[in-house]
Amino acid sequence: MNKKVGVVMGSNSDWPVMQHAVQQLEAFGIEYEARVVSAHRTPDLLFEYAATARERGLACIIAGAGGAAHLPGMLASKTTLPILGVPVNSRYLKGMDSLLSIVQMPKGIPVATFAIGEAGAANAGLYAVSILANQDDALAEKLADFRADQQEAVLAMQLPPEE
Amino acid sequence: MNKKVGVVMGSNSDWPVMQHAVQQLEAFGIEYEARVVSAHRTPDLLFEYAATARERGLACIIAGAGGAAHLPGMLASKTTLPILGVPVNSRYLKGMDSLLSIVQMPKGIPVATFAIGEAGAANAGLYAVSILANQDDALAEKLADFRADQQEAVLAMQLPPEE
Amino acid sequence: MNKKVGVVMGSNSDWPVMQHAVQQLEAFGIEYEARVVSAHRTPDLLFEYAATARERGLACIIAGAGGAAHLPGMLASKTTLPILGVPVNSRYLKGMDSLLSIVQMPKGIPVATFAIGEAGAANAGLYAVSILANQDDALAEKLADFRADQQEAVLAMQLPPEE
Amino acid sequence: MNKKVGVVMGSNSDWPVMQHAVQQLEAFGIEYEARVVSAHRTPDLLFEYAATARERGLACIIAGAGGAAHLPGMLASKTTLPILGVPVNSRYLKGMDSLLSIVQMPKGIPVATFAIGEAGAANAGLYAVSILANQDDALAEKLADFRADQQEAVLAMQLPPEE
Amino acid sequence: MNKKVGVVMGSNSDWPVMQHAVQQLEAFGIEYEARVVSAHRTPDLLFEYAATARERGLACIIAGAGGAAHLPGMLASKTTLPILGVPVNSRYLKGMDSLLSIVQMPKGIPVATFAIGEAGAANAGLYAVSILANQDDALAEKLADFRADQQEAVLAMQLPPEE
Amino acid sequence: MNKKVGVVMGSNSDWPVMQHAVQQLEAFGIEYEARVVSAHRTPDLLFEYAATARERGLACIIAGAGGAAHLPGMLASKTTLPILGVPVNSRYLKGMDSLLSIVQMPKGIPVATFAIGEAGAANAGLYAVSILANQDDALAEKLADFRADQQEAVLAMQLPPEE
Amino acid sequence: MNKKVGVVMGSNSDWPVMQHAVQQLEAFGIEYEARVVSAHRTPDLLFEYAATARERGLACIIAGAGGAAHLPGMLASKTTLPILGVPVNSRYLKGMDSLLSIVQMPKGIPVATFAIGEAGAANAGLYAVSILANQDDALAEKLADFRADQQEAVLAMQLPPEE
Amino acid sequence: MNKKVGVVMGSNSDWPVMQHAVQQLEAFGIEYEARVVSAHRTPDLLFEYAATARERGLACIIAGAGGAAHLPGMLASKTTLPILGVPVNSRYLKGMDSLLSIVQMPKGIPVATFAIGEAGAANAGLYAVSILANQDDALAEKLADFRADQQEAVLAMQLPPEE
Repeated sequence: MNKKVGVVMGSNSDWPVMQHAVQQLEAFGIEYEARVVSAHRTPDLLFEYAATARERGLACIIAGAGGAAHLPGMLASKTTLPILGVPVNSRYLKGMDSLLSIVQMPKGIPVATFAIGEAGAANAGLYAVSILANQDDALAEKLADFRADQQEAVLAMQLPPEE
Repeated sequence: MNKKVGVVMGSNSDWPVMQHAVQQLEAFGIEYEARVVSAHRTPDLLFEYAATARERGLACIIAGAGGAAHLPGMLASKTTLPILGVPVNSRYLKGMDSLLSIVQMPKGIPVATFAIGEAGAANAGLYAVSILANQDDALAEKLADFRADQQEAVLAMQLPPEE
Repeated sequence: MNKKVGVVMGSNSDWPVMQHAVQQLEAFGIEYEARVVSAHRTPDLLFEYAATARERGLACIIAGAGGAAHLPGMLASKTTLPILGVPVNSRYLKGMDSLLSIVQMPKGIPVATFAIGEAGAANAGLYAVSILANQDDALAEKLADFRADQQEAVLAMQLPPEE
Repeated sequence: MNKKVGVVMGSNSDWPVMQHAVQQLEAFGIEYEARVVSAHRTPDLLFEYAATARERGLACIIAGAGGAAHLPGMLASKTTLPILGVPVNSRYLKGMDSLLSIVQMPKGIPVATFAIGEAGAANAGLYAVSILANQDDALAEKLADFRADQQEAVLAMQLPPEE
Repeated sequence: MNKKVGVVMGSNSDWPVMQHAVQQLEAFGIEYEARVVSAHRTPDLLFEYAATARERGLACIIAGAGGAAHLPGMLASKTTLPILGVPVNSRYLKGMDSLLSIVQMPKGIPVATFAIGEAGAANAGLYAVSILANQDDALAEKLADFRADQQEAVLAMQLPPEE
Repeated sequence: MNKKVGVVMGSNSDWPVMQHAVQQLEAFGIEYEARVVSAHRTPDLLFEYAATARERGLACIIAGAGGAAHLPGMLASKTTLPILGVPVNSRYLKGMDSLLSIVQMPKGIPVATFAIGEAGAANAGLYAVSILANQDDALAEKLADFRADQQEAVLAMQLPPEE
Repeated sequence: MNKKVGVVMGSNSDWPVMQHAVQQLEAFGIEYEARVVSAHRTPDLLFEYAATARERGLACIIAGAGGAAHLPGMLASKTTLPILGVPVNSRYLKGMDSLLSIVQMPKGIPVATFAIGEAGAANAGLYAVSILANQDDALAEKLADFRADQQEAVLAMQLPPEE
Repeated sequence: MNKKVGVVMGSNSDWPVMQHAVQQLEAFGIEYEARVVSAHRTPDLLFEYAATARERGLACIIAGAGGAAHLPGMLASKTTLPILGVPVNSRYLKGMDSLLSIVQMPKGIPVATFAIGEAGAANAGLYAVSILANQDDALAEKLADFRADQQEAVLAMQLPPEE
């Protein structure tokens, strides 16, 4: 049973966004591998990465990319593992191009898409946890605890906020 | 180990789109339950549905909604199961409102979002299969076969298309 | 006859925007309660808040949220009080996602929507005053005075503006 | 205490959309007056209509307009009654122009905005009811009953829908 | 024959943009009057301003406004003089709301619309000159000279630009 | 004193839209010349047309084009006459591309832009009339009469509309 | 010297659009090969197609795709031949998703992008001709003749158009 | 056989973006000429530049412009050489106006369009190289080497990035 999560991004300049996915995985004690895989500049690596992902023990792959963001969709074309796509905010169109390039996949090859930027990266991490939790009751409980803590944090918020 | 998929939508008028999710589940022999749950008109049912989903044996929930589409996100707020959101095409804004209402979730509560309309519904179904396939090698193989068949179908396409 | 206004927001980080609603209420001497209620992180609180709002003496509820902004619509699903939604400006899409998530409500559950950001928050406050003024002639007069003052301020503006 | 609702629109070609507001008012037994008032073609009527609205016994005004939709905002500039704006779907931009023209009001003059087209018109009607219900317990109860009926209708929906 | 140009804007905060219109008028020696007229906060002034514009000797009116920008269109509803609308850049939607609110006027009441922000303001000034030049050969010649100078300036540009 | 209006369009397929400009000119008895001038397919004609426009007695030029609509702006680059641009609705982007291509002119070369499609064409015609009316009191009066008739037509509208 | 043009598309359902590219190639007597190559459903074929394109004698490749359109960009990642991308109009977003997915390529891997739909396909065909014409004076002359004919056709257009 | 590349832009303020095209040409040792040519302010220069481009030995022309960006399309109307259009990011609409003004060319006059801003300028430079490489095997090899180097650079990237 695969329990490791792949985290890939098109460039190391995506790290400030994509590290939010990694942080969630670490918080839940999930094993992961993070590396740069560029759809356009390292296409062969992309294919090999995706084609061997299941046998290398990956449960799913989180992929972040910006602009004409082809990485998540092309990974999905080469593996049947769940792909989680994060639209990295782009310079001029603010990630709307990234979002549409990732989410509007044609029938037959799905990519699960999350919000633009940091929030989307963090949520992709949490979603990977929820997929793994399907096979792991302890993890499901941990996820429930995370939610409870999160709720407590909101309940404790004051208005106006304390400086 | 949960193996059933929930399929919910805000109105039975979403059926022409959401049936494409159901068709994929049926093609893979996945057990599912499909019902109308409206975030705005049956909020209590929504809460109960989500809160009891894990114990009722659901592995994940596919939720379709249009316009100010709150169903996927609110389900996600009440369960830690993976939620798969389908933006149903809306009358005037063509699903751009549905898409943004579903995909732009804040950090902490993820929803996996798919393409607007029929393609997105079908892909949500396939993605649910891929989640289940993490625990089920036979299903993973079936998914690989589906991809192979799909590839064959494309390879057999003629140009210009035969009438 | 209810005369108190509820002001809720998804996070205390929305305060810099939502305080503009509170300022208007204070300027008109309207009683209010402001608190953090998150649709996604405190869904039970949201339901309880909305369900008990009328009996607790609220006349209407101003709700601000950003991104996939579900708070106003979900409040509306649990109470028949007037809900006033403020689209908080989001990081990448500048509140267009918030706006569409709030305004595009389906038939049957209305949410009154105001402009993105500070102006919208202030106007939601003023609109709450106008609702209360329907039952309160003194308040209606105060609102008319506010308008007259506002007109005077514009009439006094010089071009080019004085530094 | 004013209990009548004004319903105005820029042209009688807006009637197919705006009649949905009228239908809700009729369903709740609310007195109303419906007429064509064009911001651009009958500006004097617009001013007179708004300026005399409160004294003529109106509790609020529902205004529908499309394209560069100035009617709701200009009504709001001439009365302190609550204005409810309905963005009528436009021919080429599908109501996105109408929506932005109505919702993005500057600080000081609020307009409550509803969804584009028929759903928005119906919801403006329901929202007017909710404003009146603040002064009328029987009406509040009727509104609660409407919600309950609406919930029942959703709960009774079958999938696939019966033809 | 009217030869004076009116320049109005919704607030003195629009001055940094609208001064670019004034600068062009000054450069061509055109008489003008600049003042704050707010569609929403000084509607009566707006009506009076427009209704008396022709008899006061104005040849046309340049009007700048942002967000739900109703000033140009409402001026046009009260005078048959040419109105030149400048969409002032708005805080969150960057003037797209201003643009659509001004340009999408219904059949019957035209507003000439220019680019968002400073360039649009300057061009509205130049366009006013071109309207006046229809009756004034010397001015037409001056406009031709301006174009020639402008052409020279471009022809003299070096690449890379001199610091 | 020039009193003739030029009406040009990129293709005769633009006629169904642009005839609305011509109809207004005819209704006011304005002399005009209508012809096809394509920025991209007949650039030399475009240059000659614009360069000789003033001496040929044109007072202004109405230009309609769709998609990457360069006709109005390029006419403006070759004449100092007022150019009135009509964004013709395009097949896929519904005229949003035409609008931005026409309205977003850089500082120095103004184009007056009108609404997308038929309404914009009609309004460009009316605006041309208003420019000519600056030199022609009888025409100004005719324009005022047109407005009065238009107002009467709106005042006579019934709700619901008569079939 | 390569003189053949590749024409590929993601599905035979793209043929009604992409045949406009083929028609131009045929009109200029350019040799071409047209086939279905899907980025997502036949990724290996895509890689092989692109990797062997130069040695198989292709001068450039025209690639059409819709939605999350990855075909042109992925071809470009596997060959240094010029790639010409055609955004096929998509069902709900009308090709805006296709356009952004194709045109917003990151630095290093260029794709030349053309207009959405039929016009873009035809122009991609013409652009391929212009690339080949760089090495072929006879073809360059033919292209000049095509332009001249096109100009004549526009010059011959009547207004109103003959039925 | 032409081997020189023209690089033009509407203003020297476009240089910070367009220099990225020049840098690529220099890196590949391609001869080029860079100059300011404004569609709107120097239309005659534009026409002459394009009309004489082929005979002056240009192989293709890279043209950058922002806002209502007419330069690439008008060059294309006056030459049959390949035109490469770069949408320069605009102040308020971030280059979306530039992109649509360039890419949405009508059938018959193609412009190859690249990404908004710096990435698009660099890619236009690389694309010009790829066009020239069709006639020059050494250049094709150099381009392949560039790709290989680029791939190596990505493969060497570390996560988290080294400071």
